[in-house]
Amino acid sequence: MKNISRRQFLTYVGAVGGSSALLKTSLAMGLVNEDPYSGPVKVTPATGKKKPTVLILGSGIAGLSTAFELEKAGYECTILEASFRAGGRNLTVRNGDKIDEMGNPQICQFDKQENLFFNCGPARIPGHHRRLLHYCKALNVPLQVKANSSKMAYFQDDQFLGGKPKRIIEYHTDARGLMSELLWKSADSSTFDQMLGKEDVEKLMSFSKAFGDLTENGKYIGSERAGSTTDRMLEFPTPHAPLELKAMLDSRFWYGGLLGAELYDWCEPLMEPLGGMDAVVKGFLRNLKKQPTLNAQVKKIYNRDNGVEVTYEKGGKFHTVQADYCFNNIPAYFMAGIENNFTTKYQTALNSIKRGHLFKIAYQMKERFWEKDGIYGGISYSADPISQIWYPSHDINAQKGVLLGAYTWDPKISAMFEALSPAERLKVGAISGEKIHPGYSKNIENGISIPWGRMNHQMGCGMRMSEEDFEKYFHFLQKPEGRHFMIGDQISHHSGWQEGALASSEQALQQLNKLLSASVDQGSKIHVS
Amino acid sequence: MKNISRRQFLTYVGAVGGSSALLKTSLAMGLVNEDPYSGPVKVTPATGKKKPTVLILGSGIAGLSTAFELEKAGYECTILEASFRAGGRNLTVRNGDKIDEMGNPQICQFDKQENLFFNCGPARIPGHHRRLLHYCKALNVPLQVKANSSKMAYFQDDQFLGGKPKRIIEYHTDARGLMSELLWKSADSSTFDQMLGKEDVEKLMSFSKAFGDLTENGKYIGSERAGSTTDRMLEFPTPHAPLELKAMLDSRFWYGGLLGAELYDWCEPLMEPLGGMDAVVKGFLRNLKKQPTLNAQVKKIYNRDNGVEVTYEKGGKFHTVQADYCFNNIPAYFMAGIENNFTTKYQTALNSIKRGHLFKIAYQMKERFWEKDGIYGGISYSADPISQIWYPSHDINAQKGVLLGAYTWDPKISAMFEALSPAERLKVGAISGEKIHPGYSKNIENGISIPWGRMNHQMGCGMRMSEEDFEKYFHFLQKPEGRHFMIGDQISHHSGWQEGALASSEQALQQLNKLLSASVDQGSKIHVS
Repeated sequence: MKNISRRQFLTYVGAVGGSSALLKTSLAMGLVNEDPYSGPVKVTPATGKKKPTVLILGSGIAGLSTAFELEKAGYECTILEASFRAGGRNLTVRNGDKIDEMGNPQICQFDKQENLFFNCGPARIPGHHRRLLHYCKALNVPLQVKANSSKMAYFQDDQFLGGKPKRIIEYHTDARGLMSELLWKSADSSTFDQMLGKEDVEKLMSFSKAFGDLTENGKYIGSERAGSTTDRMLEFPTPHAPLELKAMLDSRFWYGGLLGAELYDWCEPLMEPLGGMDAVVKGFLRNLKKQPTLNAQVKKIYNRDNGVEVTYEKGGKFHTVQADYCFNNIPAYFMAGIENNFTTKYQTALNSIKRGHLFKIAYQMKERFWEKDGIYGGISYSADPISQIWYPSHDINAQKGVLLGAYTWDPKISAMFEALSPAERLKVGAISGEKIHPGYSKNIENGISIPWGRMNHQMGCGMRMSEEDFEKYFHFLQKPEGRHFMIGDQISHHSGWQEGALASSEQALQQLNKLLSASVDQGSKIHVS
Repeated sequence: MKNISRRQFLTYVGAVGGSSALLKTSLAMGLVNEDPYSGPVKVTPATGKKKPTVLILGSGIAGLSTAFELEKAGYECTILEASFRAGGRNLTVRNGDKIDEMGNPQICQFDKQENLFFNCGPARIPGHHRRLLHYCKALNVPLQVKANSSKMAYFQDDQFLGGKPKRIIEYHTDARGLMSELLWKSADSSTFDQMLGKEDVEKLMSFSKAFGDLTENGKYIGSERAGSTTDRMLEFPTPHAPLELKAMLDSRFWYGGLLGAELYDWCEPLMEPLGGMDAVVKGFLRNLKKQPTLNAQVKKIYNRDNGVEVTYEKGGKFHTVQADYCFNNIPAYFMAGIENNFTTKYQTALNSIKRGHLFKIAYQMKERFWEKDGIYGGISYSADPISQIWYPSHDINAQKGVLLGAYTWDPKISAMFEALSPAERLKVGAISGEKIHPGYSKNIENGISIPWGRMNHQMGCGMRMSEEDFEKYFHFLQKPEGRHFMIGDQISHHSGWQEGALASSEQALQQLNKLLSASVDQGSKIHVS
């Protein structure tokens, strides 16, 4: 629009003066952008004298949302939860909370302050996770932007630049510059002359120049996009010395670090509920008619002719309950240990789901030293086992803060952390943090570690399936066996995200609707017990 | 770290067990990361029986911070402000507020709600603006992350893809892919064999593959990094069809749009004060001993032997006041109309500062329709005169929201908007918004426009100087003439940002300290009147 003439501009104005023809056209032409997500499944409402009953096994996000939708449609839901708390892997810990690791229970020692909490499981919500965002709105869960990527944060690798941490913005800017310089050079040396016309080759060179901030003759000599070594408020900026191409190619940050903000689920801006991700769990619980039965460990699941029978243990006693339907949120790899009468294929399919091993550390820091260094959220990437450090972007300028000090999903590394005592894990994490932030260790007041592979009633997180098994069993497991429906992020393409859990629930409820309409077609009111 | 062995891992653990040798080394080696910003200037404290007096002309950010620091050091400050309000271009408007455009005063009609406000001037704070962040902390101005870039927002250009808006994430991902494909091709066809060894050429190809998400044989065929045309929660993702290279090269989003998140001042995450940027102004005012004198228009400034004499008009009357020092925050292009006894060179230097013309529109929207479309902040880029649309990232899921509907700093375009009536401006903006969000217009409840080139007591924004004049006069204007110091973002390398204003104040106070120490050296207690 740089070269707009006054006359061109006035066509806009003219269009809005008098008859507003263009405006009307535009309005006539346009439909309101439709939300591709049409909202939760409308479950076929309960009919008949007696409310249909449902057993929901597990109070993770899939279980809670299933109960919420079924209750809305008039079903009577009982949630059985093995743990002492609801929410599954949606776990936010604060002062005094128990981290229920098998054999290593930890009690969170964070100060008793609203801003000192840690999301042990899910921690961020991208704008395209429409299901979760729908529920946040419907359940009045207040959201705020969560800075997931910070250009001011660091890359650190002992084998790169002698271990000196490098600001991400410098690495990013240099990578773009070096890449653009090579592209400019190729275009200039006629590499693309056969595939592109002369004019397009010129445009490509201009593009490279803009993309990489190159000099007039296509050189990358550093860029003020990455800041200045002088005080740029009062002097001309002097770019830092750029990385050597070889150093960039030898470095190990091409993936996680360089692409951190490029992955669809990390698509900025991300969001988080104010005060912790468990606000989502609390939102569901606030809106459920019947609260989950806690400490209820499922021992048997039997499909019966007109329903499902479940036996659970609570307080040393066994209870057997029946319901018309069962939605099962229990990690599938536990199902081999639960007595059942499933078909061999169904049980084999369940067995094919393996468990992921994520590991996280969180430290309470006595000072938000990262803010003094210009970091207000986002992630530093380390080549050490800790992999990442996350800075909170809420409660900016508070005195203390809770830092994520390690986050690895490499099962081998996680297993090594799992083998350590909680105290040792914190020490290991401190050493790596120290390399990025000298003085890190002495800011640590206390900390926790969450090895999902050892957490009671979870023993893993995320679904892991071989490609072959996935091909064979995924769609099979989306369908009920009898009146038993598997749910959870494990029955989605998006394991490890709440959106996957919600999608699985939505999908299962669609299957229920199908079952119900088939029964109605057959003249049998299957859901009226 | 993928290939770490258990033994390597145990070196970390070993190091922390027992003597914690490595940890200690690390601690011994490291110093706490020092904040490169050491805090505001410590002004030489007032001595003598009578407090030294200071006149501060203009209550913009530079004036306020200068007064704040001088008061701390025991100086008696009087701020003269021409407008009916303090803050200068730090202007947040809400229900009932006056937009003081010359000849076109507007009254903001936003509903009376806390979340419905608009920052007409500065609106974001990057993490490296240490001075402003210092004051936010010192003045208890609560901050939150502001999403400045959103990958879910759009590019729209009538001449690109037939005018269809394109999600930024798709454009970004395709640009990276297409660029990487070309680079891969060059590397594969030996273009770089002379400058890089075989191994590095291979690394470059791997890098291109990772950067652009190419296929095994170096093709870009779209990428799930930009999402999926299918429901990726329940199915394998299917990338959208990629842009053609030619369309990408022909498009006009290389700069603003493609680089939006790459510029240093737009370095994510950015921040904003809760409830509006004028929280900074209020923070200063809360902490000043003496509040600014409003509606006081400066008419004369005279350097005298032992101070400065200023005449101002207030309520039709002229007042003449003296002080030991004067810090002048008035837009320099107004100085030609203010009687003074400056040297010709000083006045010529002041005259060399020209004014910028920024223009903004804000609409109150009856529904936050953009959130339904996955947008929770950030900027859409338009090739129309409006240039940008900003979405609020605060108060997510509220019913209504205030949208920035135009933001241009092209003086030609701004001048065209300036020539329209406020109502016409809003209509022009609505047409362009409609192209990105069909139904846009019917969501508009009311709106305002801020043509900084026509705003009373501003008549422009940002300093514009020719390179030649800048070379000649910038450092000259940083120095006082007599006891008169020019301040404001106009006396910085970073005009248009509050950080520039604060830097100018800091610099001027350093000059004051110099002046004071010179006087002390000469045995004259210049500041004791």
